[in-house]
Amino acid sequence: MRTVLILTIVSLFSLPAAAQKVPLPAPSRQNQVSVMPLPATFQLGPGHLLVDESFTVAIEGAEDVRLDRAAQRFITNLSRQTGIPLSVATVGRKAETLGKATLTISASDASRAVPEFDEDERYTLDVSPSGATLTAPNTLGVLHGLETFLQLVQPMPDGFAAPEIYIEDKPRFPWRGLMIDVSRHFSPIEVIKRNIDGMAAAKLNVLHWHLSDDQGFRVESRAFPKLQEMGSDGMYYKQAEIRDVIEYAADRGVRVVPEFDMPGHATAWFVGYPKLSSGPGPYSIERHWGVFDPVMDPTREETYKFLDKFIGEMSGLFPDQFFHIGGDEPNGQQWDVNPKIQAFMRTHHVKSDQELQQYFTARVQKIVAKNHKQVIGWDEILRPGMSNEIVIQSWRGQSSLAAAAKQGYRGLLSSGYYLDAMWTAAHHYSVDPLSGDAANLSPDEKARILGGEACLWAEYITPANIDSRIWPRTAAIAERLWSPAGTEDVDSMYRRLATWEWRLEWLGIKDESNYLAMLDRMVGTDETAALRVLADTVRPTDLRTREQAAAREGIAMSATTPLNRMVDTVPPESEAANDFTRAVDTMVASNFKDVDTERQVRMQLERWRDNPPRLQPLLDGSLLLKELAPVSQALASLAAAGLQALDYIDKGERAPTVWKVQTLAMVDQASQPQADLVIAVAPAVQILVLASAAATPSAQHGGAER
Amino acid sequence: MRTVLILTIVSLFSLPAAAQKVPLPAPSRQNQVSVMPLPATFQLGPGHLLVDESFTVAIEGAEDVRLDRAAQRFITNLSRQTGIPLSVATVGRKAETLGKATLTISASDASRAVPEFDEDERYTLDVSPSGATLTAPNTLGVLHGLETFLQLVQPMPDGFAAPEIYIEDKPRFPWRGLMIDVSRHFSPIEVIKRNIDGMAAAKLNVLHWHLSDDQGFRVESRAFPKLQEMGSDGMYYKQAEIRDVIEYAADRGVRVVPEFDMPGHATAWFVGYPKLSSGPGPYSIERHWGVFDPVMDPTREETYKFLDKFIGEMSGLFPDQFFHIGGDEPNGQQWDVNPKIQAFMRTHHVKSDQELQQYFTARVQKIVAKNHKQVIGWDEILRPGMSNEIVIQSWRGQSSLAAAAKQGYRGLLSSGYYLDAMWTAAHHYSVDPLSGDAANLSPDEKARILGGEACLWAEYITPANIDSRIWPRTAAIAERLWSPAGTEDVDSMYRRLATWEWRLEWLGIKDESNYLAMLDRMVGTDETAALRVLADTVRPTDLRTREQAAAREGIAMSATTPLNRMVDTVPPESEAANDFTRAVDTMVASNFKDVDTERQVRMQLERWRDNPPRLQPLLDGSLLLKELAPVSQALASLAAAGLQALDYIDKGERAPTVWKVQTLAMVDQASQPQADLVIAVAPAVQILVLASAAATPSAQHGGAER
Repeated sequence: MRTVLILTIVSLFSLPAAAQKVPLPAPSRQNQVSVMPLPATFQLGPGHLLVDESFTVAIEGAEDVRLDRAAQRFITNLSRQTGIPLSVATVGRKAETLGKATLTISASDASRAVPEFDEDERYTLDVSPSGATLTAPNTLGVLHGLETFLQLVQPMPDGFAAPEIYIEDKPRFPWRGLMIDVSRHFSPIEVIKRNIDGMAAAKLNVLHWHLSDDQGFRVESRAFPKLQEMGSDGMYYKQAEIRDVIEYAADRGVRVVPEFDMPGHATAWFVGYPKLSSGPGPYSIERHWGVFDPVMDPTREETYKFLDKFIGEMSGLFPDQFFHIGGDEPNGQQWDVNPKIQAFMRTHHVKSDQELQQYFTARVQKIVAKNHKQVIGWDEILRPGMSNEIVIQSWRGQSSLAAAAKQGYRGLLSSGYYLDAMWTAAHHYSVDPLSGDAANLSPDEKARILGGEACLWAEYITPANIDSRIWPRTAAIAERLWSPAGTEDVDSMYRRLATWEWRLEWLGIKDESNYLAMLDRMVGTDETAALRVLADTVRPTDLRTREQAAAREGIAMSATTPLNRMVDTVPPESEAANDFTRAVDTMVASNFKDVDTERQVRMQLERWRDNPPRLQPLLDGSLLLKELAPVSQALASLAAAGLQALDYIDKGERAPTVWKVQTLAMVDQASQPQADLVIAVAPAVQILVLASAAATPSAQHGGAER
Repeated sequence: MRTVLILTIVSLFSLPAAAQKVPLPAPSRQNQVSVMPLPATFQLGPGHLLVDESFTVAIEGAEDVRLDRAAQRFITNLSRQTGIPLSVATVGRKAETLGKATLTISASDASRAVPEFDEDERYTLDVSPSGATLTAPNTLGVLHGLETFLQLVQPMPDGFAAPEIYIEDKPRFPWRGLMIDVSRHFSPIEVIKRNIDGMAAAKLNVLHWHLSDDQGFRVESRAFPKLQEMGSDGMYYKQAEIRDVIEYAADRGVRVVPEFDMPGHATAWFVGYPKLSSGPGPYSIERHWGVFDPVMDPTREETYKFLDKFIGEMSGLFPDQFFHIGGDEPNGQQWDVNPKIQAFMRTHHVKSDQELQQYFTARVQKIVAKNHKQVIGWDEILRPGMSNEIVIQSWRGQSSLAAAAKQGYRGLLSSGYYLDAMWTAAHHYSVDPLSGDAANLSPDEKARILGGEACLWAEYITPANIDSRIWPRTAAIAERLWSPAGTEDVDSMYRRLATWEWRLEWLGIKDESNYLAMLDRMVGTDETAALRVLADTVRPTDLRTREQAAAREGIAMSATTPLNRMVDTVPPESEAANDFTRAVDTMVASNFKDVDTERQVRMQLERWRDNPPRLQPLLDGSLLLKELAPVSQALASLAAAGLQALDYIDKGERAPTVWKVQTLAMVDQASQPQADLVIAVAPAVQILVLASAAATPSAQHGGAER
C-alpha cells in the first residue's frame, strides 16, 4: 500500500527512440503473446519486465483528467489481477519523479469531451526489462495501450511480468461495437457498466444501446413521460443514469449510440401514445417475441411533431454524432388496413409499404440532421434517394453491405455476429466484413465499410446469463474488427481467449460465477458436482432450433417465462468438449500411441459413463432438472461407446461392423437436441467409433489399464 | 415481468388463527428445514407452497417505508434465487387486492428510525399450501421472517416451493454481531454492503466497524481532517458513505457500532496529530502487524478536548446508542519513559499503567455519556469503579465475561469467534457465550451476557478473500447466537450450511467466485483444473502457526505484502476434505463392505495420486505456485498410501507392520504445514492406514477393480 504512483508533467520529454526497430507482422508470432485483439505489429524480445509492489506510473504530455483517471484505473486493475498492493493514493502529475517510473505514459493531445467516430486510436508500447513507455497521439490510444499492458502481464516463474516487446498498434476498422437489447429483457445499470469494462478490455469502441422495442421503452423522456411510465414496467434508465453511463463509457474510450427503433418494433411507445400508431389501439406492452403489427403512422404530421420533440430531447441526452433509428421489420399490416393511410399513399403516389417507410425515413433523417446528427439504421432503411449521410447496419450480410457501399453508403456488418444465435467463437471469428461480395469492392468502397457490431438480442437474456452470452466470444469478434486482415489462426485465438478470460472476473464480468450460481440454484445446495459433470459437456441448441422446438411443443415463450433452465445456464460453447475433442484429435494424430492422452480421455469417459446414478437423485429432487434425465443417459451411452471403441483399438481388433452401425446410430440419436441442449462431446466420440472400425486397425500399445 | 406485487393496507385484517398449533422444539426436527439459524420453534406439515410467476405480496398494518422497501427487496431476491421473473413495479400499499396475495405481511408497529439495541425481533411465519402469512410486532421481526421465507424456498420435484410450516421465532441473544477490521486492510464500501446482506440473511444485527488502528484511520473527520488525510493513504470512508452504509444496514435490521480504538492501537491518529500521543513523534502509518508503543497521553487535558470534539462529531455521524472505544493492548512503553506522565501518575497516586488506562477510560466514558451513548470496549477497560453502563467485549473468554457479569457489567463474547484464526465452523459452533464459568451464573447475571460477535481482524484480508473468511462460517456463529441453547447437531449445521451457502452468490457474496478467480490469476489462464484438484484438499494453517512460520523464516509480514498465495486463496475449511472424511467414516462404519462408497473414494485417491505430473507444468510456470511442489507430492503420497491400504483391506490381508510404521511416519510428515497450508485429507488417510493394519482385518469384498 505504500507504493507510490508517480505522475509527472514533463512537456519536453523525448519520445523513445524506436525508429530503428522493425516490427514483424503479427500473425507470424501470435502464439507468443497473450494479447487479444492481437496488435497490428509487434516485436518480442527475450527479457521481461517484472511487476511488483514497486510498480509506478508517470504521466507526461497533454493535461487530461480522463487520462489521469485511466492511469488510476490501470493501477487498480493491475493490483487486482496480480494481488499486489498498489495504491492510487498519490495520483497526480508531479515533477519530482521524472524518469523513475516503471511505466511512462505520454499523449500529445487530450481526448475530446467524449470519444468521437474515427478518432486516431494508435499507440506505441515499448516494454523493456527496465521499464515501459506508452505513447499515443491522444488519450484514446493510451487507453488501448493500457489495456494491452494489463494483458501482457502474466504470472511467470519469477513473478508477474510483461514480456519485452515493442508494439505499434492501431485498429483495422474504426467502428467496433456491441449492441445490447435492453427492451426484451432489461439490464440494470451495473450490468451495462461491467460489460463496458469488458468492451474496453477488448478494444471495442461503440456501445449500441437498443433502448426501445415492442417489449419495453427503457429511457426516461421528460417530453413524453408516458413512454417510460406506461411502456417499461418501471424498468427504465433515468436520464441521470444515462449520463452516468455515457461518462463511464467515455472514460473507457467507448461511444454510446442510442437506438430508438421506428416505425416498427414500437409497441411500447403506443401504450402511452396510441395516436402515434397506425392502428386504433389501445395497446399494452408486448410480452411475446417476434414481429408484430403495430407501427407508427408515417402519414400524420403529428407523428413528425412528436418525433421532432423526442429526437431533440434525446439528442441532448446522447452526445454521439450518430442516432440509430432502427427501421427493421415493419410488416405493413396496420398500413394496409388503415383507409386514411391507404388514401395518403394514393394521393402521394406511394406505391408500396417499402416506399412508405422510405418516406418516413427521409422525414426522420431530416429531423436527426437538424440535431446535427447522422442516421444509422438497419438494412431496411436503405432505399433509393436516401441521403448519403446515413449508415447501414447489415443484419442481412456482406452482399447487402457491398451493395450499399457501391451506392456510396457507409455500413457496418452485424450478420454473423449475433451472439444470441449461440454460435461458436470460431464461427464468429470466421466472419469478415470485407469478405464475400465486399471482397471485390474498390478501395474507396471498402473504406465505406466502417466495421461491425456484435449483437445481443435479449429474448433469452437475464442479468444472470448475459455475461456468458457476451463473453468471451465477443473478444473473438473484437479481434476480427481490430487486428490486421489475415489474423486467422483459430487455435491461437482460443488459446489467447483462455488467457484473456481469467481477467474477466477481476473486471466484474460474471460469466463463470453466474454459471455456477445458476447450477447451485437448480439443485438447492452448493453440492453440484454430479450436475456440473453433465453441464460442462453440453451447450444450448442454436436459437433457431430452440424456437422451432418451442413451436413444435406449443410453448409460447414470453417475457414472463423463467430463464432458469439448463439451456439458459450453460455457456454457448463447452470448454470441456473443446478440450476433449482436442485430446481425441491428438490421439488420432498419434495413431493411438499417445498413452498419456488416452489415459486422460479414458478417465473423462469413465466419469461421464458413471455419472447417471450420482446425478439421478439431484434430477429427482428438482423440477428444473427433470428434463435432463435423457441427456444424462445419452452422455453415459456416448461415454460407454467411446470406452468400447478404445478397447477395440487398444486390443488391435477392428470393431465389428454390426457394433459400429448400432453405435453410430446411437451417437446420431444422442446428438439430437434434448431439453434444448446439444451434447457437445458427441462428434469426438463418433471419431473414436469410426477409428475403431477403420480398415487399418491401430497398433496395440497396451497402455490403458482396464 | 408482468407479475404484480400486491401491497395492501387493511387495518382490521384478522391475524391467522394459529393458537391451536403447538410448535415443537426445533432441534428434534432440525434436519427437515433448510433455515439457518434454526428457528426457535417450528412445526412442519406435509404439504408445500409453490413459488411461481404468480407470486404476490400484500402488506397490511403499520405504515413503514422500511417495510415496503424490505418487501421489494424480498421480491427481487426471491426472483434472483429462483430465476422466476417477479416485478417490483407495482409496489405500494393498495386496497383492492386483499386476501389474494401469496404472502401477507403484517406488522403492528413501524420500526424505529434505525434499529436499536434490544428491540423485539420476534416473528411468526405460517406457510400453508395455499398461502403464507408473516406477522410481527414490528418491521424488525418482518425482516427476519422474510429472510426465513427466502431460505425455506428450495427447488423441489414440482418446482420451487416452501414447505408447509408454522414458525414462532425469536433470538436467544439480543446482540449478534460481526466485527470487520478495515484498518489493517481497507474494505471498500461495496464489500461492506454485500457483507451486510450476508449478515441480514444470517439474522445478525450488529456491524461492529473497527475503523481505526495503528495501520489506518478510515473515517472522514471534518473536525480533524488530518486524521484521514495523513492516516489513511487515501483509503477512508467519506461521511456521506458512512451515512449511506448506516441507512443500508438499517434497512436490513443491522445496527452499526463504530470502534475508534484508544488509547493504544492509535498510531494512525498520531501521523496527523502527534501531540495526542505520549511520545515525541513524528509518526508514520504503521505497516507491520502486532502491538506497538504509541499510545494516547491520558495526562494532558488537550487529549480530552480533542476527544470531546471528535466523539461529539462521530456521535452525530453514528446514531447507535453504543460507542466502541477499543481499549485493548496499550503496552505502556511510552507512558513508562515519559517523565511528565510519570510525574502525573505520582501526583495523582496512579500506581500502574492499568490504573492510568482506568483513569483514561473513565474520562472518555463521561464524554461518550455526554453524547447520550454508552461505552463498549475490550476486556481491558473493565477496572474497579467503572460505570455499570459500559459493556465488555471479551476476547479473553467466558471466564472474564462471567467475572464482569458478577460485577454487574454487561458483556459480549468474541473469544472463540475470531474468523481470522482460521478455525472450522464446527469449532466456532461449539463455543457458547453461556458455557464455562458463565454457565454457573445466576439468571440475572446471565441476562447481562448480551450475545457475541464474530471478529475478522484484517492482517491477511483483502477484498478478494474477505468473503471466504467471513462466509459461510459466520452463519454457524449466527446460529449459536440466535437459536435455542441445545441446538448442537453439527451434522445438521453443516448440511444446512451447504443449503444456505448457494444463495450467497445471489446476494453478491463472492466467497466461491473469488476463490476461482484467485486460482486463475496464479496460473494466468482459466485452465486450472489440476491446480484446483490440489487447492480443494488444503486449508490455511491456523493464524498462530502462519505467524510462527513467518517469524522462523524471518519474513516480516506487512501491509505491503501481496496476499495472493494459495494460503490467502483457499477457504478456511476444505469441503472436499470434509466429504472425503465422511466417505471414509462411512466405509469404516460398514466394515469396508460399502462397495459404492469405496469406488468413489478410490476414484478420488487416484485423481490425487495422478495429479502431480499434470500440475507440475503450472507450478513451473508461476512463482506463486512454486511453493506448492512439496504439497503436491505429499498429497500424491497420501493418496498412494490410501490406495495401498484399501488394497490390503480388500484382499483381507493385514498390512505389514513395517509398512504401517513407515506409512504412518509419511502421513505424519505430510500432515505438517507446508507453504502455510495443511493437507486436510491427511487424517482420513491415516484412518485407512490404521484400518488396514488393524488386528481384525476387514472382510474381503472384491468390489474394487484394480
